[in-house]
Amino acid sequence: MMDLEKYFDKEITISGFAEKIRNLQWVQFIVLRNEGKRIQITIEKSEEKNNDMVQIVNNLTQESTIKVTGVLKKNDKVKMGGMEIIPSKIEVTSVSLPELPISITDKSAANIDTRLDNRFIDLRNDTNFYIFKIQTEFVRAMRQYLYDNDFTEIHTPKLIGAASESGSEVFEVNYFNDKAYLAQSPQFYKQMAIASGYEKVFEVAPCFRAENSNTNRHATEFTSFDIEFANINSYEDVMNFEEELIKAGLSAVKEKYGDLIKECYGKEVIVPTTPFPRIKLQDLYKELEKRYGYKVPDHDVGDMNAETEKLTSRFAMEEFGHEFIFVTDFSKTKRAFYHMRKDDVPQGYDLIWRGVEITTGAQREHRYDVLEAQAKEKGLGEDIKFYKDFFKYGCPPHGGFALGIDRLTMLLLGLPSLKETMFIFRGPNRLTP
Amino acid sequence: MMDLEKYFDKEITISGFAEKIRNLQWVQFIVLRNEGKRIQITIEKSEEKNNDMVQIVNNLTQESTIKVTGVLKKNDKVKMGGMEIIPSKIEVTSVSLPELPISITDKSAANIDTRLDNRFIDLRNDTNFYIFKIQTEFVRAMRQYLYDNDFTEIHTPKLIGAASESGSEVFEVNYFNDKAYLAQSPQFYKQMAIASGYEKVFEVAPCFRAENSNTNRHATEFTSFDIEFANINSYEDVMNFEEELIKAGLSAVKEKYGDLIKECYGKEVIVPTTPFPRIKLQDLYKELEKRYGYKVPDHDVGDMNAETEKLTSRFAMEEFGHEFIFVTDFSKTKRAFYHMRKDDVPQGYDLIWRGVEITTGAQREHRYDVLEAQAKEKGLGEDIKFYKDFFKYGCPPHGGFALGIDRLTMLLLGLPSLKETMFIFRGPNRLTP
Repeated sequence: MMDLEKYFDKEITISGFAEKIRNLQWVQFIVLRNEGKRIQITIEKSEEKNNDMVQIVNNLTQESTIKVTGVLKKNDKVKMGGMEIIPSKIEVTSVSLPELPISITDKSAANIDTRLDNRFIDLRNDTNFYIFKIQTEFVRAMRQYLYDNDFTEIHTPKLIGAASESGSEVFEVNYFNDKAYLAQSPQFYKQMAIASGYEKVFEVAPCFRAENSNTNRHATEFTSFDIEFANINSYEDVMNFEEELIKAGLSAVKEKYGDLIKECYGKEVIVPTTPFPRIKLQDLYKELEKRYGYKVPDHDVGDMNAETEKLTSRFAMEEFGHEFIFVTDFSKTKRAFYHMRKDDVPQGYDLIWRGVEITTGAQREHRYDVLEAQAKEKGLGEDIKFYKDFFKYGCPPHGGFALGIDRLTMLLLGLPSLKETMFIFRGPNRLTP
Repeated sequence: MMDLEKYFDKEITISGFAEKIRNLQWVQFIVLRNEGKRIQITIEKSEEKNNDMVQIVNNLTQESTIKVTGVLKKNDKVKMGGMEIIPSKIEVTSVSLPELPISITDKSAANIDTRLDNRFIDLRNDTNFYIFKIQTEFVRAMRQYLYDNDFTEIHTPKLIGAASESGSEVFEVNYFNDKAYLAQSPQFYKQMAIASGYEKVFEVAPCFRAENSNTNRHATEFTSFDIEFANINSYEDVMNFEEELIKAGLSAVKEKYGDLIKECYGKEVIVPTTPFPRIKLQDLYKELEKRYGYKVPDHDVGDMNAETEKLTSRFAMEEFGHEFIFVTDFSKTKRAFYHMRKDDVPQGYDLIWRGVEITTGAQREHRYDVLEAQAKEKGLGEDIKFYKDFFKYGCPPHGGFALGIDRLTMLLLGLPSLKETMFIFRGPNRLTP
């Protein structure tokens, strides 16, 4: 909706949904909603020139769309923005059935599955609607930061010939008379870009995971913001870059939507200071035990579980007053074969924000022989031959990371589940709408 | 590579591929390549302090990557930019095998399939490398135009529950104990965004087509730049918007890469004037017959084939001096059910550029009853019920279009095939690398 204040006492035309319709004895009111903003349309029934409009409003159903032409008037009695439109013409551009399948204003009136079944109505709720306005700005600002740093955008294939990388949890596709698989990440291909001579690349694209789990943090399809760049000295360079990227994104979000996020989601957007705090996993374990009496279960040692992540954020806040913290020095048994190691320690990190891991980043192993040995150790063979070949004819040192933008948005707005923050959620039991 | 001229007589560190190595009696030269730019490294063998470097260069293989620290010197005798680096340190950061599987400089020395098998080396050829630098700028500028017009970015699902839209040529996915399909386009979902109240949306994402055809213009996976916006008066608004978007993209490309494109691909980037010429299909047929003696074969009447597209561009250039032309008034039998019709004529268009269709755009049918009838006429039923539901509870008039960015890049640079312009091509017989 345009910035209306400039148009007082002028004729304007405006379109939107008829969110509320009140038909009183002498007057009719419509609340028109356009992209989360609202304006009142006021029709005096007594004026003969309004007869056609009065008829239209008599038959108008809630959530039908209308196009209204009229004069914008300042009116301090109107609670909604202190203005109203006195229309000369109302055109109904689409008609809604009278009974909506779910409430727009009261999200709690239906369970999450019913809401997702009717996602196109669910999104009309302001707190759902704004999610993608805010996410647009977040992603825009991060892309801009990359453009400013001479990154090249790539579009890597999602149909791949081998069930690569992890080997499990991959969707199989019937590909003519053959089998293909859906890419779990662009990892191998963004590294191919580095071997091809691109110094810095990024991609924002879907990733697919055939995980049969129904947590708040998992989806079978999600959007990943992937970054890889060459000629680094260590994974420190990767962390340094990531913190600046996130800072750039959050600065822009705060500026454009900080007030709205506070009002609508009760969340403060905090632009982080850099450098973010860093801690080694073994030191973190000690702190968590000392401070909170939490001992990591044996089967999670060398890695982080959900409880560790939560306490790590608490620790970061109490010790450093910071929402973000990098955790380094994971066990090599818990990290991918393509992470570079130094003295057997993977040269990578997890980044924790608001109690949840948002990134795994690392320097990659670019030396063919070492990569080959590390792959073998993890039991990976012929399937990734095409990938290992990338490192045979020169490939500079490089590293990178990925951010799931749905998860990032969930944490930014303090929402309970990816089901809320994905435009259309996909899980093991959900393929519609 | 940084802008070097500022660093004359200063020490710099620079990384890249050792593209050429010449080992003469008294001196060694390396041509270092970084993102398509080159600089000469000169090592005097007679100087004792250079002994270590001389040894390194003795063993250096072409296309290994190196990190060089040295003083940048102006030297007019050096053809390559009139400068050279006198190094104090050379570090080999990765070692290439001595024999490359394909030539980097001579593309004609290997057929396209061998080149694609070795895409990570093929991309080191300048004319391949620059493609994605240029495409990055094209897409960046178009996205910026959308941001400036308050568009919202969406990420729609690629895994869908029904083989929707056309019903054929869709990839099937094994989805736990069920079947899913890969989205052929975000069409239904970008329209859902409109029904959800977003006034203007876009998405840049992969589309999948199970077409078993091997032409220069087809791929089983490609990247689509998709746009949809509400509250239009007719498809004229869609055409008006698209031509401004393309103009914004091409202006930016010309400014940043116009000279390079001329030099490297022999193509002039022409920023089009608006409005683009427009012609009705029936009038076009008459012109093509009158001017070029071309009569559209009976089975293509109401639509355009490859020959028609080619001649249409010739006509646009001869009649209007314009590279672009909108063709309207197609036959409803040749258009999707969701295109709005007026007096039985689909309210949409094709946009032709340089002899090839780059867009189909249209106003969409947003009235439930009409949409239902048009779907039925095309034999579409239960599978698209979820889609038709979007129009039951209010949905404003809207329209949109899609641009395949790979095809666009192909035409911009005058390249012969999508195999050349996709980062990694996917076709019926190609799933690797």
